[in-house]
Amino acid sequence: MRILVSNDDGINHPALWHLVDAIADLGDVIVSAPDRNCSGVGTAMTLHNPVRVNEVRSRVDGVPAFAVQGMPADAVVLGIRELADGPVDAVITGINPGNNVTTNVLVSGTLGAAYAGHLNGIPAMAVSVGYKVDTTDRVLASAIHGAASCLLRHEGQALVNVNFPWAEDWPLKGARQTVPAPRFLEDVTKPDRHGSDEFYWIERQLVEGVSFDSLPADSDVVSLRSGFVSVNSMAWPIDPGRDEQLIQSIIENVDSAIASSS
Amino acid sequence: MRILVSNDDGINHPALWHLVDAIADLGDVIVSAPDRNCSGVGTAMTLHNPVRVNEVRSRVDGVPAFAVQGMPADAVVLGIRELADGPVDAVITGINPGNNVTTNVLVSGTLGAAYAGHLNGIPAMAVSVGYKVDTTDRVLASAIHGAASCLLRHEGQALVNVNFPWAEDWPLKGARQTVPAPRFLEDVTKPDRHGSDEFYWIERQLVEGVSFDSLPADSDVVSLRSGFVSVNSMAWPIDPGRDEQLIQSIIENVDSAIASSS
Amino acid sequence: MRILVSNDDGINHPALWHLVDAIADLGDVIVSAPDRNCSGVGTAMTLHNPVRVNEVRSRVDGVPAFAVQGMPADAVVLGIRELADGPVDAVITGINPGNNVTTNVLVSGTLGAAYAGHLNGIPAMAVSVGYKVDTTDRVLASAIHGAASCLLRHEGQALVNVNFPWAEDWPLKGARQTVPAPRFLEDVTKPDRHGSDEFYWIERQLVEGVSFDSLPADSDVVSLRSGFVSVNSMAWPIDPGRDEQLIQSIIENVDSAIASSS
Amino acid sequence: MRILVSNDDGINHPALWHLVDAIADLGDVIVSAPDRNCSGVGTAMTLHNPVRVNEVRSRVDGVPAFAVQGMPADAVVLGIRELADGPVDAVITGINPGNNVTTNVLVSGTLGAAYAGHLNGIPAMAVSVGYKVDTTDRVLASAIHGAASCLLRHEGQALVNVNFPWAEDWPLKGARQTVPAPRFLEDVTKPDRHGSDEFYWIERQLVEGVSFDSLPADSDVVSLRSGFVSVNSMAWPIDPGRDEQLIQSIIENVDSAIASSS
Repeated sequence: MRILVSNDDGINHPALWHLVDAIADLGDVIVSAPDRNCSGVGTAMTLHNPVRVNEVRSRVDGVPAFAVQGMPADAVVLGIRELADGPVDAVITGINPGNNVTTNVLVSGTLGAAYAGHLNGIPAMAVSVGYKVDTTDRVLASAIHGAASCLLRHEGQALVNVNFPWAEDWPLKGARQTVPAPRFLEDVTKPDRHGSDEFYWIERQLVEGVSFDSLPADSDVVSLRSGFVSVNSMAWPIDPGRDEQLIQSIIENVDSAIASSS
Repeated sequence: MRILVSNDDGINHPALWHLVDAIADLGDVIVSAPDRNCSGVGTAMTLHNPVRVNEVRSRVDGVPAFAVQGMPADAVVLGIRELADGPVDAVITGINPGNNVTTNVLVSGTLGAAYAGHLNGIPAMAVSVGYKVDTTDRVLASAIHGAASCLLRHEGQALVNVNFPWAEDWPLKGARQTVPAPRFLEDVTKPDRHGSDEFYWIERQLVEGVSFDSLPADSDVVSLRSGFVSVNSMAWPIDPGRDEQLIQSIIENVDSAIASSS
Repeated sequence: MRILVSNDDGINHPALWHLVDAIADLGDVIVSAPDRNCSGVGTAMTLHNPVRVNEVRSRVDGVPAFAVQGMPADAVVLGIRELADGPVDAVITGINPGNNVTTNVLVSGTLGAAYAGHLNGIPAMAVSVGYKVDTTDRVLASAIHGAASCLLRHEGQALVNVNFPWAEDWPLKGARQTVPAPRFLEDVTKPDRHGSDEFYWIERQLVEGVSFDSLPADSDVVSLRSGFVSVNSMAWPIDPGRDEQLIQSIIENVDSAIASSS
Repeated sequence: MRILVSNDDGINHPALWHLVDAIADLGDVIVSAPDRNCSGVGTAMTLHNPVRVNEVRSRVDGVPAFAVQGMPADAVVLGIRELADGPVDAVITGINPGNNVTTNVLVSGTLGAAYAGHLNGIPAMAVSVGYKVDTTDRVLASAIHGAASCLLRHEGQALVNVNFPWAEDWPLKGARQTVPAPRFLEDVTKPDRHGSDEFYWIERQLVEGVSFDSLPADSDVVSLRSGFVSVNSMAWPIDPGRDEQLIQSIIENVDSAIASSS
């Protein structure tokens, strides 16, 4: 099996390499990722400018690594079409430090990279962890390994979004199928200046007045807060019932990984 | 009513101003759009760099115009939070020359700009037209006017995606509620060089072997090919049943605009 | 005569248009300038990516205006080769708010744009003013007009760098031929963060321990501090004796403009 | 001695590492270079946006390597102020594949990086080679080693520009002090399109009608064509008489390196 790994934080981010470590024994892994941090770019593609690639020193023996001067989705498309030695069987993106849930899914470059696999006909999975999780964690690695092995056995299209809770909500209690929570974050602007040069920062923050208590019990946010790994399908066109069987097998595998670690 | 207009082709694109012309009598219009063409960037936001804005010469009297050095979504967020004189009642984006249907929705900056309104709690609508449509067309303007007036009367969140057929499939037969067609486009890479400098272009093209005949009759692609305006909801979390009432009223208004033009 | 006007602060900066106003009666003026602020980019050219241009609304009747998605030097090269209706007789850049003297000349986009004219065989002049000067000032306009008319009468290559003193050193006492002061500015780094995102700002500041008193009397910096307009040649290869005659005629014209204003 | 190495082709370009190899025994070497190819940006600095740095895998043991998301000059300033463990004694940039002579000096990022050292008070040297030279060549390495050792012994400011002839003009005959040839290159524009998207490429080419025969015998271009290494000073303010003693010692050392190789 040939697995393409990408992310949105850039090829130098250590968590990308922790993902590679976690799944390296499942097949031939190749890394194609942006050369710079691209958080927040979602599904953006570079359709109007040349895209360049450099093969760079890999951090894992036997895993070729390509730094793409472009978006996460560019890196995945180039990985599939140009850089891999043969057909790619799965695209796995992450580990993103920061959950991609509720409306964040839409601007997540981790999901954007996974979509680039999915929309080109290759089963894909995005992996994100909550605030302050150690991405070298042994249980995390084992759970990712389990989920990835399901994806590789899967036939047909799929896009699975897997999120692990914040560090404070560990140890993991298990995995659950979830739906995205409704709007929970909003974008705010902060005027700033550097010398006489005026500009804005755009930031995401919790919507004022929205509380965790008001969110659906089966939502991604609530599951994470309860210590459960959130698993759902973002396959397009989006339909909560898609990828049902794959999601169930991932949940079983993640549950096993968690159980065998305690 | 205060209406924010944006697009992804940049503030200099004439079709943006044809949208402004079409809806100018519905309220106080303000334009906040990227200063450069950003096609293909989807929902991307600039969360890690300063974002700058210039007020520029407007092409329509009484409509303030702001060129944002950033993504379509940045332009909308800044428009809502900083540039408009008061609360924005609706975000309308386009007119995009090129349909945003099937999987294209995910990389469309026209939709990305509309999402930025929707995810910040403001009813939003994206307007796109097929290949070679004249964006100054009188029926088009009238249909957009009708759809926009529905959006302005709507209470609560919404994100409506409105597409008009290719020029060759005009005159318009009416409007229909649709669902996004399944994967219909894929991304390919074209190696190229400029002097000794090697790079790739990334392009979208029809998936080999997929034919129009295989697509669902109620899909956006089939409706457009049959000469009907496609209207559906992309409100998040995506659910085909959302915005039902608003969509019906838009369809009625567009139908009226078409009928009264013949 | 056909005059190309550019700058590095971008086509929306009012001081560019004050330069156009000052020289508009000397010939056919065309504006080709970056669409964004490019301060600090010096002579940078875009040799590895596509460069795009939009014709934009001009602020002066009869003066076509082109916004280039690139560097100041790109804007000048495109202006000369593609945008002007015929051969360009002179390139004039500015008005830059901030003097381009001593080592600043090397990173100045105002000079960079002028170099692009000069290196392509067209007489060029860069115009900069000190801190807080009102770029609509009548004497300034008259002095620029005088200098520009000399440049237009000049035969052969040239690159003249004209600087006006800080507002606090006005009224102008006259013009002088100068040499660039030795190193007077240095680059410092300021670590900063935005959320968890760490980065640096690079800034230019006076070299610690260097005083105005230690600088040569005929240097640009000392002349400006004494209330004199600084005029010198930056034609390449740099040679203090170049453009001697042109510089003398500019000095006479600027002196006249100042004299007739008092 | 602490030596900062940079370039404009980016930290992944092999010729940068061949420069490191050539001088590694002369002191503590640190690499701080752009993460992407920045050819043509000259002295450009990033004064209006955050600049980010990643420590990356070095290709030479004991040589720390930093990839800067910015211009060559940014990389040098950050290297001097933030990344090196102590005061930097010399900045050496290259090896640039392509000569930086005549008017090319002004847009060369290799020179731009060297200027960033020089203008911050640190002796600097730019090293470039003509078309098709093998940058692992043993004589080249030995000549660079000789030149670098002179720079390290030098007291006071300096900026030396060293160019090696095209491959076809090898073996090297010796080194010479030169002056920059007058205008020899010009910028041309090539309209191009990608789909419906129109743009320009900007290219440098020989000025039509200028022949090598018309150039001064002591010019950089003529020396290179005759098989001699070109050495001159670009210290600012530019003055052909500057750095005389340093240049002579470099010429002697390069001559020795060449002699001992035959």
